[in-house]
Amino acid sequence: MSSGKHLAKGSTPPALGKDGKLRLYSMRFCPYAQRIHLILDAKNIPYHTIFINLTEKPEWYFEKNPLGKVPALEVPDKENITLYESLVVADYIEEAYSDKKRKLYPADPFQKAQDRILIERFNGAVISPYYRILFSTDGIPPGAITEFGTGLDIFEKELKSRGTPYFGGDKPGMLDYMIWPWCERVDLLKFALGDKYELDKERFGKLLQWRELMEKDEAVKQSFLSTESHTKFLQSRKSGENNYDILSNDAKRLRAA
Amino acid sequence: MSSGKHLAKGSTPPALGKDGKLRLYSMRFCPYAQRIHLILDAKNIPYHTIFINLTEKPEWYFEKNPLGKVPALEVPDKENITLYESLVVADYIEEAYSDKKRKLYPADPFQKAQDRILIERFNGAVISPYYRILFSTDGIPPGAITEFGTGLDIFEKELKSRGTPYFGGDKPGMLDYMIWPWCERVDLLKFALGDKYELDKERFGKLLQWRELMEKDEAVKQSFLSTESHTKFLQSRKSGENNYDILSNDAKRLRAA
Repeated sequence: MSSGKHLAKGSTPPALGKDGKLRLYSMRFCPYAQRIHLILDAKNIPYHTIFINLTEKPEWYFEKNPLGKVPALEVPDKENITLYESLVVADYIEEAYSDKKRKLYPADPFQKAQDRILIERFNGAVISPYYRILFSTDGIPPGAITEFGTGLDIFEKELKSRGTPYFGGDKPGMLDYMIWPWCERVDLLKFALGDKYELDKERFGKLLQWRELMEKDEAVKQSFLSTESHTKFLQSRKSGENNYDILSNDAKRLRAA
Repeated sequence: MSSGKHLAKGSTPPALGKDGKLRLYSMRFCPYAQRIHLILDAKNIPYHTIFINLTEKPEWYFEKNPLGKVPALEVPDKENITLYESLVVADYIEEAYSDKKRKLYPADPFQKAQDRILIERFNGAVISPYYRILFSTDGIPPGAITEFGTGLDIFEKELKSRGTPYFGGDKPGMLDYMIWPWCERVDLLKFALGDKYELDKERFGKLLQWRELMEKDEAVKQSFLSTESHTKFLQSRKSGENNYDILSNDAKRLRAA
């Protein structure tokens, strides 16, 4: 994935031509948008990425998506109607490309439902305390660290009971990719909790092995950012600067040096 | 649907035998559980209903469902693993019975995704202000009534643009059934807002026509409760009594009279 510039207020919609490719409206640091990059990359589906400045949204973007949210997916021949809500978009891609592309859900509806339940549980059990810790302004909320650990316990136990390297078996599946963006960002918690924070190697042994494997996955590599990059954006967000282009500016500075 | 007794702490699991039927763990007044009754009834899939007392949950229920939530669905041959999260369960039923039963989603993945987006939007735009009004203890939260109306506007506009009696076309589909339970309960708002509260007949003309049609739907009729019955339970809940069996007790009193 490129680290291209985020389009803002006053911009014009990109002229992409009619090449039949999907268009993904995204933000470089958004974990929900990353879910869709992961799915498209895992399935080798070609697409354009249009990065949107979420603080100063382009006026034209509201014609594409009345809520102005990312991720949003524009499908060829259905212009000016975008699909949004990351899980709905991910399921749409799975269904719309079910014939020719790698499948990410289990074929059995019961197993698929179990994976979807775990994706929902990740939301409440892991993502929710994660953000409460990360964006705490008045000290870490009581219980949030314990809750975060208890949430991860569910996934450690699940991976152990499945006995496979990935939740999806021998390869990452939908569940792996839907929870990955926050797992990539776990070390951001050091920002709130101090450098000593790290996941307990015994308690989360399976998850840590899984994380190492995931980092080597071809789809993951395409959108992966280091903790250092994630931290830079978080600092910019916390300062109110919201510099969405912080990575491409870095690259420019390096080229200029 | 029966108005059978809700099983509580100290109860034993019902002895249902191996008849191959699905088992739906439910609570008679829970709108999320009603979603699954509606889907099963619309598809004419036979099932057992087991009502759970959500205040005094049976000890055995946590073996079925570690979170103790309803709705939960138990599938024959997969005992002691329940599926939960109402939308996941509804989608599971749609997929697992896709061969022989009436389909509730549009066949086209893009249209299906649009319906799923609207189901998600109903959650934030309608259900959320609905509960904030209904369970306000310190006066109606500012903006909640406006927000509720603006949420319903989305669905009024959608029904108008589709030009069909139901969101699903000539028959109710998944979107109709997933939003129905709260539409059945709209008049409960009189409880918080006073008797004068009602939906504006012009502003919500399409939705009100739709509501009348929905009340005549065979699947809806099977779980339908009057505003009077919903109000009785709400009063019991607000008083802290939580009388889940309020309707079956009523029936008993009538029989005894």
